[in-house]
Amino acid sequence: MPEYDLAIRGGTVVTATDTIRADIGVRDGRIAAVADRLADAARTIDASGLLVLPGGIDSHVHIAQPSGPGIVMADDFASATRAAAAGGNTCVMPFALQPRGQSLRETALAYRALAEGQCHIDVAIHLIVSDPTPAVLGQELPAMIGAGFTSFKVFMTYDDLVLNDRQILDVFDVARREGARVMVHAEGYDAIRYMTERMERSGQTGPYGHALSRPQTVEREAAHRAISHAELVDLPIVIVHVSGGEAMEQIAWAQERGMKIHAETCPQYLTLTAEDMKGLGQDDPLAGSKYVCSPPVRDTASQEQIWSGIQRGVFDVVSSDHCPFRYDETGKRNPKGRTSFRWIPNGIPGIETRLPILFSEGVSKGRISLNRFVALSATNHAKLYGLYPRKGSIGPGFDADLTLWDPNRREVIRQEILHHGADYTPWEGFAVTGWPVMTIAGGSVIVEDGRILEEPGRGRVLDREIDRTKLSPRL
Amino acid sequence: MPEYDLAIRGGTVVTATDTIRADIGVRDGRIAAVADRLADAARTIDASGLLVLPGGIDSHVHIAQPSGPGIVMADDFASATRAAAAGGNTCVMPFALQPRGQSLRETALAYRALAEGQCHIDVAIHLIVSDPTPAVLGQELPAMIGAGFTSFKVFMTYDDLVLNDRQILDVFDVARREGARVMVHAEGYDAIRYMTERMERSGQTGPYGHALSRPQTVEREAAHRAISHAELVDLPIVIVHVSGGEAMEQIAWAQERGMKIHAETCPQYLTLTAEDMKGLGQDDPLAGSKYVCSPPVRDTASQEQIWSGIQRGVFDVVSSDHCPFRYDETGKRNPKGRTSFRWIPNGIPGIETRLPILFSEGVSKGRISLNRFVALSATNHAKLYGLYPRKGSIGPGFDADLTLWDPNRREVIRQEILHHGADYTPWEGFAVTGWPVMTIAGGSVIVEDGRILEEPGRGRVLDREIDRTKLSPRL
Amino acid sequence: MPEYDLAIRGGTVVTATDTIRADIGVRDGRIAAVADRLADAARTIDASGLLVLPGGIDSHVHIAQPSGPGIVMADDFASATRAAAAGGNTCVMPFALQPRGQSLRETALAYRALAEGQCHIDVAIHLIVSDPTPAVLGQELPAMIGAGFTSFKVFMTYDDLVLNDRQILDVFDVARREGARVMVHAEGYDAIRYMTERMERSGQTGPYGHALSRPQTVEREAAHRAISHAELVDLPIVIVHVSGGEAMEQIAWAQERGMKIHAETCPQYLTLTAEDMKGLGQDDPLAGSKYVCSPPVRDTASQEQIWSGIQRGVFDVVSSDHCPFRYDETGKRNPKGRTSFRWIPNGIPGIETRLPILFSEGVSKGRISLNRFVALSATNHAKLYGLYPRKGSIGPGFDADLTLWDPNRREVIRQEILHHGADYTPWEGFAVTGWPVMTIAGGSVIVEDGRILEEPGRGRVLDREIDRTKLSPRL
Amino acid sequence: MPEYDLAIRGGTVVTATDTIRADIGVRDGRIAAVADRLADAARTIDASGLLVLPGGIDSHVHIAQPSGPGIVMADDFASATRAAAAGGNTCVMPFALQPRGQSLRETALAYRALAEGQCHIDVAIHLIVSDPTPAVLGQELPAMIGAGFTSFKVFMTYDDLVLNDRQILDVFDVARREGARVMVHAEGYDAIRYMTERMERSGQTGPYGHALSRPQTVEREAAHRAISHAELVDLPIVIVHVSGGEAMEQIAWAQERGMKIHAETCPQYLTLTAEDMKGLGQDDPLAGSKYVCSPPVRDTASQEQIWSGIQRGVFDVVSSDHCPFRYDETGKRNPKGRTSFRWIPNGIPGIETRLPILFSEGVSKGRISLNRFVALSATNHAKLYGLYPRKGSIGPGFDADLTLWDPNRREVIRQEILHHGADYTPWEGFAVTGWPVMTIAGGSVIVEDGRILEEPGRGRVLDREIDRTKLSPRL
Repeated sequence: MPEYDLAIRGGTVVTATDTIRADIGVRDGRIAAVADRLADAARTIDASGLLVLPGGIDSHVHIAQPSGPGIVMADDFASATRAAAAGGNTCVMPFALQPRGQSLRETALAYRALAEGQCHIDVAIHLIVSDPTPAVLGQELPAMIGAGFTSFKVFMTYDDLVLNDRQILDVFDVARREGARVMVHAEGYDAIRYMTERMERSGQTGPYGHALSRPQTVEREAAHRAISHAELVDLPIVIVHVSGGEAMEQIAWAQERGMKIHAETCPQYLTLTAEDMKGLGQDDPLAGSKYVCSPPVRDTASQEQIWSGIQRGVFDVVSSDHCPFRYDETGKRNPKGRTSFRWIPNGIPGIETRLPILFSEGVSKGRISLNRFVALSATNHAKLYGLYPRKGSIGPGFDADLTLWDPNRREVIRQEILHHGADYTPWEGFAVTGWPVMTIAGGSVIVEDGRILEEPGRGRVLDREIDRTKLSPRL
Repeated sequence: MPEYDLAIRGGTVVTATDTIRADIGVRDGRIAAVADRLADAARTIDASGLLVLPGGIDSHVHIAQPSGPGIVMADDFASATRAAAAGGNTCVMPFALQPRGQSLRETALAYRALAEGQCHIDVAIHLIVSDPTPAVLGQELPAMIGAGFTSFKVFMTYDDLVLNDRQILDVFDVARREGARVMVHAEGYDAIRYMTERMERSGQTGPYGHALSRPQTVEREAAHRAISHAELVDLPIVIVHVSGGEAMEQIAWAQERGMKIHAETCPQYLTLTAEDMKGLGQDDPLAGSKYVCSPPVRDTASQEQIWSGIQRGVFDVVSSDHCPFRYDETGKRNPKGRTSFRWIPNGIPGIETRLPILFSEGVSKGRISLNRFVALSATNHAKLYGLYPRKGSIGPGFDADLTLWDPNRREVIRQEILHHGADYTPWEGFAVTGWPVMTIAGGSVIVEDGRILEEPGRGRVLDREIDRTKLSPRL
Repeated sequence: MPEYDLAIRGGTVVTATDTIRADIGVRDGRIAAVADRLADAARTIDASGLLVLPGGIDSHVHIAQPSGPGIVMADDFASATRAAAAGGNTCVMPFALQPRGQSLRETALAYRALAEGQCHIDVAIHLIVSDPTPAVLGQELPAMIGAGFTSFKVFMTYDDLVLNDRQILDVFDVARREGARVMVHAEGYDAIRYMTERMERSGQTGPYGHALSRPQTVEREAAHRAISHAELVDLPIVIVHVSGGEAMEQIAWAQERGMKIHAETCPQYLTLTAEDMKGLGQDDPLAGSKYVCSPPVRDTASQEQIWSGIQRGVFDVVSSDHCPFRYDETGKRNPKGRTSFRWIPNGIPGIETRLPILFSEGVSKGRISLNRFVALSATNHAKLYGLYPRKGSIGPGFDADLTLWDPNRREVIRQEILHHGADYTPWEGFAVTGWPVMTIAGGSVIVEDGRILEEPGRGRVLDREIDRTKLSPRL
Repeated sequence: MPEYDLAIRGGTVVTATDTIRADIGVRDGRIAAVADRLADAARTIDASGLLVLPGGIDSHVHIAQPSGPGIVMADDFASATRAAAAGGNTCVMPFALQPRGQSLRETALAYRALAEGQCHIDVAIHLIVSDPTPAVLGQELPAMIGAGFTSFKVFMTYDDLVLNDRQILDVFDVARREGARVMVHAEGYDAIRYMTERMERSGQTGPYGHALSRPQTVEREAAHRAISHAELVDLPIVIVHVSGGEAMEQIAWAQERGMKIHAETCPQYLTLTAEDMKGLGQDDPLAGSKYVCSPPVRDTASQEQIWSGIQRGVFDVVSSDHCPFRYDETGKRNPKGRTSFRWIPNGIPGIETRLPILFSEGVSKGRISLNRFVALSATNHAKLYGLYPRKGSIGPGFDADLTLWDPNRREVIRQEILHHGADYTPWEGFAVTGWPVMTIAGGSVIVEDGRILEEPGRGRVLDREIDRTKLSPRL
């Protein structure tokens, strides 16, 4: 019997710190050896000329999530994880959203059941706490954290999700006690409502009004507020999908003062601008809605600021904030959307394009090193959210979740080559250098050159444990 | 014939990003495999309960360096590398100092010859450029960079070393063209002379006057000046031995603006204070001279600022700035030293204590992760100074330079257990948790539990190459 | 008939910019001339050796304000303006507080009626908007601004006063449209409630718990939030009673970015510390309640930061935030206060001691110039709140509101020499250099060396006009 | 005999703090009264509709200064003070430049003699210390400070003027001991030489090369260095002619830390850009030399930053840095200038246009208040340099130095309407709103509507005294 089930030979193995030429031996779904030469293996893959990366982890995606009356999210677990795998990912983290008035526990278990058996790759589920009743704070949330849902998100905006400051402080308190990781959507609800009404009164009702109704001030204020609450409670938090320099300045300021504020950004904030929402040169006046997400995309100056923050370590992770809707339903055929941007669902698809965009704009253009790419796209996600040391790097004991990457391959992103459930991509026509050519999950090749090789079902729903040891490194 | 010359089994392998349980196989002096289980090996070391770290790299040490009339540095290559190895290091980087009026080339080659055959561990040599004549700028410096001396230091102070601003700009220009790495000792010469005279006039002539004559302002100003020159030339530089928050603020400011300014600090700036120079409670009025180094050690507030800079990435490396003198010659029996602090040689020994102090104060006290310790003590040194990917991490292809570390062992630093040539340590009585228990260089065990197992001679003098490829990662 | 009703001869006349030796001639209650020599006058005052200052203006005092069930404020208009005059002031600005559910208009007119005929010196009334109903926003507030109540305060905390963010944005909007000046009490309501409950749970129920329940983070966050709302609306605001460096940093940051954020601080933040709330060495465990105000007094480091902000222009005005309660009612005999600090009324008396403390700590100790003292204590108040050019400086046309000040007189502040309605002063025993020796209001001497020379009634209630001209200078 | 020699009636009198309608009475060359109505006067001027301002003080002008071989400055004392008066100024402060190797004392007295009897308005003379020999430091400089030359400038660049850091520290030391005011020209000599050679090597030899050879980095570095030296010596300094945001950032940083760093800027940094040096659309390739001054003018972003610094108090004074050369000699017919920008004299004329430009761009465009204009153009100059309380404001005792200003008059700046000795103005065609219509010096009308009414000779050379009293206000 061969020593290894699978050997990947001749590639350049990249971790968040190292770049070496080595072979990788896989046994029982896990990496067993990284060596200059390997004993025999049942199957051998030739990775000559390719990078061998830890499979991408996307810690911020929305899948099959209730999105308001009449709106269906464009991806279920099968299609989302299929698209993720095609994009070089081996793990994604969607959200179990608690609707107000409902049990957090039932929500979480129902969402988990939805995922079971439907996934191409492993998933781990965050909670969204929208209704922190005494029962939720006192029993349900601690119980679910103990049951493996060790991270959750809170919202500072959206009618159905917004928590007030007191509620935020209370859930932070629980998180601190239980050791959970908290993500914060930082935009100020009241300010958005005020600006939205102002835009509508002034007739700025098209998709571009979305940008005007949520200027950077709104995000910056909420970021400062969340940081202050975290400081009072003494809780590390993750401020997600930071869109521009203003909120980033607050985060960097807090980090300089020694507060443990983590930050996430997304490819849209590195490549798109609010101008895109004007839908210029497109037939449909609602075409700009293809770029409506929250916080909104900003401008090229903000893009440069975000890159600077990535380079000097303000940001730990780059996620997709994949939140897919079909344009033919929510844009083209959305009569309410024509009356005001406020009725356009907030979110864009990106699960499949995150890695190529970050690699191309980051590594190929010389802005970040290969190692930093790995940290931002995989390792830090695993460390932040309790998947480490099962996932996130390459070495004996890690899941054999690997992506073979051709750093020189040029591609043009087009809807027709993607696998997600949305009917468009905001990056249509976007040219990249660097492309995932093979995705290996748990030691099995699941995607090869864009072809999905398996039916869904391999992917597990992972429970996580609060790390109370000293072994697992801090970020 | 066994597959491996050496196997290290059962340890916890730590790199700058990962912490995993794995075995390491060594062949021909290099790491050949990192695996969950290894084929047979000629020799096996049981690392159970121990950390297996990349051997420490100390990129800032002074060995056998001319130090002014009548002053002999306390370490030659044999004793310095012996002490380094005992302290868990497998590579050190001393300086070939060009005396004014002499050939840089001859200086470098003579210094290199001094090292050959005398070292316990590998060394790589930086230059010190003190006399940038047209011949040096036009021929010698480029030639020596091409010959493997790919890094050099410039001084902004010291009578015999100081370069004026024009000279600094000129050598920066050469470094940019040739791809060399430049280290800067940032303290302002004229300001120090002015302050020294003021201190002497006011009768502040004891060792503590050294601190008063070089306040943080002096270091901050020079750091800002060096940064500005680097900005004009568009050259990344390393500002070495940053002592406090003022200079650090300048560096962080430059980094935020996107300038490539690297920074180094040392254990003395994390643990000692200017008060130590007062020699309180000691017999000899010159006892404070045991703590005289430049820049001077500061205060506890500065220590906290430096830790903060380490945590948020302002600093890339922690070195020792080992610069050993015998107290019985330069302190106790130094008649000129009694007339003024200006005659006390600037420098303290630290090559052997750097790693235990950084580990104990950093990792054991929870200020930094194990991985950050590895980055600060080994990996980043290798990457900054062209030793990567030969040295600095653990994986196939790296030199088998490893330190086995007992994270729980408590020790008290005392002169009597050290191996350096100095007759004292500034950390006498300093208690640490965490200690190197075995040092492996090129696959051979050279130190075990404080015992030196070999005569000097194994260590090579390494030439380095300018990295013009894309493979080697940026820091 | 003499040319002047009153001549003040031989003094040193000080304005916010100039310090000159000159005589002042008064006619019909106004200053008619500033000259090297004056024609004859009906009455002459010899000001030799004295400073002649614009009468102090205290733009932040609470008088006869409803303060919760069973609590009566210790000053009515007669006693408050008497004490103000004795302390060198010639104008104060109290607040007409709108109780929730009541008409803003009726509140304002009733409060105004309370003042009419009862004042020793002129008063101008700010509003407090606690219930911005559509009627208030649409009719009452614009109407009252037009009727001379051109400034109002909003609260970000206190059960009965707090506005939520949407309400704040809406009243800011009205202020912008109508040209009113808005003051903001910046402390975060929810954070205070959270911290208060935490303190109570941990048994920190004494007066010092007040400080712990409102750390600087709470004030800083609210300041940042108010600044952000002001930025969205494009409205200049005044952040009042800034207590420490954290909130000040936000204000300075906004000013550097070009936002028009004004700031006020108070003598308590320059001289008292939270330690005072511990009531050490005093009989009564509630004695610390004599120092309970909001935001709470901080520490000596904060005092230095506030001084720095005064010196470099972050602050425009120093007010008293006089808010007097009798200790024998609210402290000594306050049974609820013994159960928790949350029942201790927030506020301390200071109307009479503001100027001596600011002069002594500022001018006599060399921290600020005489001219800056005048700006901070009088001129800027007049300019900020629409009393300029009627009040605030010395020159033809200004009201003859003058204070003769002995810069060398030493006094010790004691309750027994004060004229306010409170039964204690937080500055009991505080030694000062510099003291007001005569107060002249509208050309009449109303206080001489501490003696009140008139019955109340002289003081008018001033209406103000929105300045829409170019003549009146910006601050 | 009338009470006053002169009465100015009906104007709006403006000081650095106040704007009032009042009459001014003048007696014996000084202001005797500011009053609502005045007794009779020998002469009356109707100032209805006009502003009555303190006469402008220009504390940074170069007159008849040796400027290198073959170069003659375009203004002597007669023409410079004539132009100054026509531009609304009543006092200017030129420099007595010590040539290396010569006596400071003789230089100063000779320069003073040059001025005596030749001036239309008062002048006060700064020194330039270029050769701080022991004799200069020990005797001459203290003696001249005592003799009324209470301020001096040091240069950090220029071949014949540059002081090294040690010399700067030494002269700072003398200034501190003697109470003198020090001005610093902050640009780094070595960096300029390095950049100049780089520009010349790359063929950038035209006037625009001047800008490239002195980027903001060069000024910022020198500013930081000067600030650091001032901090070591504990000496307040004035950093003159700050050109852009980079140096300003350093100054603001120092001010925030409580250091007493004053700053000056000039109209050229508010209105011109480096593009002007390209001489686009002009016949002569050297036409860009009309805009060559040091530091160079920058870009529109810098202009906005400087305005922001003016608004928030980073800057105390706006001077002209008038340094006039004739274009037909130094530009058009300058053969060396054609070989490299380094041979173009550094300096532009501006003594006559400073006030209209600052008023128009500042007050008329709403960027600063009238009062701030007075502070920046007159009052702060007097206070900074020991002319206060003789000059700088309006009130009894001040010199009757007044400018009547029509705030609504529109003019276009053209060489043909100016009175200076240069043959061009950099602001040719620049439109302004606001213009000086009458200049009154010592109570005499010396300019009326552009007509010079007197021969030179009235202006005195003023000695100044070190202010060691408490009366004179700090700035």
